[in-house]
Amino acid sequence: MFITFEGGEGSGKSTVIREIARRIEERGREVVLTREPGGTPISEEIRNVILDKRNTDMDPRTEALLYAASRRQHVVQKIIPALKEGKVVISDRYLDSSLAYQGNARGLGMASVFNMNLFATEGLEPDLTLFFDLEPETGIERIEANPDREVNRLDLEKLSFHRKVREGFEKLLKENPHRMVRIDASRHLDEVIEDVWGHVEKRLNWR
Amino acid sequence: MFITFEGGEGSGKSTVIREIARRIEERGREVVLTREPGGTPISEEIRNVILDKRNTDMDPRTEALLYAASRRQHVVQKIIPALKEGKVVISDRYLDSSLAYQGNARGLGMASVFNMNLFATEGLEPDLTLFFDLEPETGIERIEANPDREVNRLDLEKLSFHRKVREGFEKLLKENPHRMVRIDASRHLDEVIEDVWGHVEKRLNWR
Repeated sequence: MFITFEGGEGSGKSTVIREIARRIEERGREVVLTREPGGTPISEEIRNVILDKRNTDMDPRTEALLYAASRRQHVVQKIIPALKEGKVVISDRYLDSSLAYQGNARGLGMASVFNMNLFATEGLEPDLTLFFDLEPETGIERIEANPDREVNRLDLEKLSFHRKVREGFEKLLKENPHRMVRIDASRHLDEVIEDVWGHVEKRLNWR
Repeated sequence: MFITFEGGEGSGKSTVIREIARRIEERGREVVLTREPGGTPISEEIRNVILDKRNTDMDPRTEALLYAASRRQHVVQKIIPALKEGKVVISDRYLDSSLAYQGNARGLGMASVFNMNLFATEGLEPDLTLFFDLEPETGIERIEANPDREVNRLDLEKLSFHRKVREGFEKLLKENPHRMVRIDASRHLDEVIEDVWGHVEKRLNWR
C-alpha cells in the first residue's frame, strides 16, 4: 500500500502524516514514513543540491531532472523494497509534485515532465494520494508565522507561482480520480485528520 | 561550432583536446573548453554526487538522470551562450557518453536514454564528434600505468563493461555518419593529433 501526501507549503501535511502513521501502526501494520526529495542517502545528497539557496541560476529542466534522479533512487532503494515486505509506505510528496511545480508552475508542461519521470518511476503509481488544498495566501501566511521553520528557496517564490502549483494539482485531481482526493486543509487540524483517516481506512479495507 | 570528444578512459582525449584548442585559437577563433559531467558550478556539484566512490548503491537510472541534469545546466549556462557569441565549444564528452555507458553498457537501452535526454538537450547536437577508439584492454593498461591519475568509480568497472561501452559507440557511429568520426587512438599521439586536426579544419571550412 503506497500512500502519498501532496499540496503547497504550510498546508499542515507533516503533522497529519505523523498522526496517520501512528494510527496505522496501532492497528498492527508496519509503516515506512518517507519524503521527497530525499528518503535515501543518495536522494538526500541530491536534495541538498536542489534546495541550496546559492543555486539561484538553476534551470527549471535541471531542477526537474534532479527531482527525478532523487525519486528514482527513492523508489528502488526504499519504496519498492518496503512494499514487497507488505509495509504501508507513506511519502510526503511524490511524482505529482513534479508535475504541479515543474510541469505546470514552471511551464515545462505536465505531459513532458510526466514522460521524463517514467524513466525514473517505471510506472510506479500511489494507491492513494491526499492533496492538501489551501488558498496559497493562507499557506504563505502560515509559513511566515512559524519562526522555527527554515525557509528554503521554493518558499521564496512569488504568490503567482503558488497559484499555478495549485492549478496543476487541480488538473491532476481531474485526471486521476481513481487514486487522488482533495483534502480541505483550511479546517482545524483535528477535522483534517479525521477526513484523511476516513480515506485511508477505506483504502486499507478497514471499513 | 560545437565539437565533442568521446571514447573510453585512457584514450588520450585530454591531451589532444588541449592541442586542438591551441591551434584553433592560433587561427583567431575563440575556444571554450569544457567537459561532462561538469562545466558549470551546479554541474560540478552534480558530478561530485555521480563520481563519489561511496555511492556504490546508485541505481543505473539515477546515474543516467544525474548525467542528464548536469548536461542540462551545462547546455543552458555554458554551451548555448558561447555558441551564440560565435565561439568554438569543445566538450570532453557529451550525450553520446550517456548513450554508450548508461544506454548500452548498463542495459537501459540507447533509445530510452536518448528520449529522456531530449528533455535535457532539447535536441542540441554536436556539429562534429571525434570518437577515440581503443581496445578496452589498452585503455585500462594506460590508466593503471599513470600514477598521477585519480581512479574514480567508473574506472573500476570490469572489462566486459568497457567492451559494451565500445559496442555502444560503434552503434552511434553507424547511426550518425553526418557528425561522428572514428579516431584510431592506439597510434602515437602526434599521429592522432594530425588526424583529428584534419577533421576539425575541414568542418571549420579551413581547407
